[in-house]
Amino acid sequence: MEKVIGVNPVIELLQNKTKNIEKIEIFKGVKDERIKKIKNLASTRNIKIFSVGKKEENSQGVVAYVSNYNYYIELGEFLEKIAVLEKAIVLILDGIQDPRNFGAIIRSAEIFGVSGIIIPERNSVKLNETVIKTSTGAIEYVDIVKVTNISDTIQQLKKLDFWVYGAEGSGEKYHHEEEYSKKVALVLGSEGEGIRKKVKENCDILVKIPMYGRINSLNVSVAGGIILSEIAKKIMLKK
Amino acid sequence: MEKVIGVNPVIELLQNKTKNIEKIEIFKGVKDERIKKIKNLASTRNIKIFSVGKKEENSQGVVAYVSNYNYYIELGEFLEKIAVLEKAIVLILDGIQDPRNFGAIIRSAEIFGVSGIIIPERNSVKLNETVIKTSTGAIEYVDIVKVTNISDTIQQLKKLDFWVYGAEGSGEKYHHEEEYSKKVALVLGSEGEGIRKKVKENCDILVKIPMYGRINSLNVSVAGGIILSEIAKKIMLKK
Repeated sequence: MEKVIGVNPVIELLQNKTKNIEKIEIFKGVKDERIKKIKNLASTRNIKIFSVGKKEENSQGVVAYVSNYNYYIELGEFLEKIAVLEKAIVLILDGIQDPRNFGAIIRSAEIFGVSGIIIPERNSVKLNETVIKTSTGAIEYVDIVKVTNISDTIQQLKKLDFWVYGAEGSGEKYHHEEEYSKKVALVLGSEGEGIRKKVKENCDILVKIPMYGRINSLNVSVAGGIILSEIAKKIMLKK
Repeated sequence: MEKVIGVNPVIELLQNKTKNIEKIEIFKGVKDERIKKIKNLASTRNIKIFSVGKKEENSQGVVAYVSNYNYYIELGEFLEKIAVLEKAIVLILDGIQDPRNFGAIIRSAEIFGVSGIIIPERNSVKLNETVIKTSTGAIEYVDIVKVTNISDTIQQLKKLDFWVYGAEGSGEKYHHEEEYSKKVALVLGSEGEGIRKKVKENCDILVKIPMYGRINSLNVSVAGGIILSEIAKKIMLKK
């Protein structure tokens, strides 16, 4: 059983009919108008609400318990899903370590129309409560795919006509100068190290964000948001 | 960061309101009645006390950590500095609560050429270690200005020919459609509530980022990064 905490994440969860919610606990002292919405949604889905005397940390007084919570989908299934799409964005996170960065990236990914996020099985942050909370419900709508080898996955995406961009401070092109194809994979590297050499070699193009200060790198979730917003804007306009 | 050790030195330090005390460590085994006074003074100044298992030599069990830097500059001094600039970006944070968001915003601000960040004296995150750490050094290069009234400050910026943009999901224009003037102030709202009504009314134009998903708002540091990168790109190209 997994826990989903926070008012908005629980509302999103309730609106996603594929999730099996066991029960919801609401702290007695909570004062939030959206609780009414939670109660209504829960009632239409026949989910029990319990009033509790103790407030779980960071929960805003609302906790949902979900059984068989499986955010992950298999690579094969994911590739089948995106193979039929005319336009698609796939995000590849090459070793993100920080759960809050991961959550914020999932949130941006959903907003900018990303179909799925690919992460390496090893040396990557796990999907934990912090990730789920920071995603503010977006985790419900974005497929997460764990793969053993990022470079192999990139090759498979290329076979499906994806162009693979790597975000890299020393990239050859500015992100906003690129026109982008209808099928784009964007690779973001880890907080400390960026994209690994091997993975970088598998990218078609490395893009950079114009920077004007003395600090030489953006937070990875900010950099991801900037490039994704540009890709989304360009792809959405394509006929 | 500087250390001040000993019971009396720390009491004196606490009574000096101009010093920026990051935290105080008190050794678990210390028996001194004046510790109570330290705790009371610290509590009224909102300074965190940590109980530690190791006693620092000659410290009488009490150590205070003071930041070397005074990151804040006075509004008057800041306005004088920017009045002579031909191009400038000023960032206004209307009630950011989360230190990691604040730190990431400072980092982006430095990278995108922001001269200074204006925050309200009340109801805003304090400059603490988390903020400094998350800014990855950017705090050294960006002026931070605390003001009592954001709307008054906006009026003063307008007198210096600044155009004031507010980031708002329901804004009238997309951020990338705007040409921006050579002097731009960008207002970002708080994580939960966005920009306060009064402050919003003082903005010249509200801009929004095109979003394509079901989640309806970006993390504030991501949204800030996206808009700042656009403003910087446009302003840097201006003759």
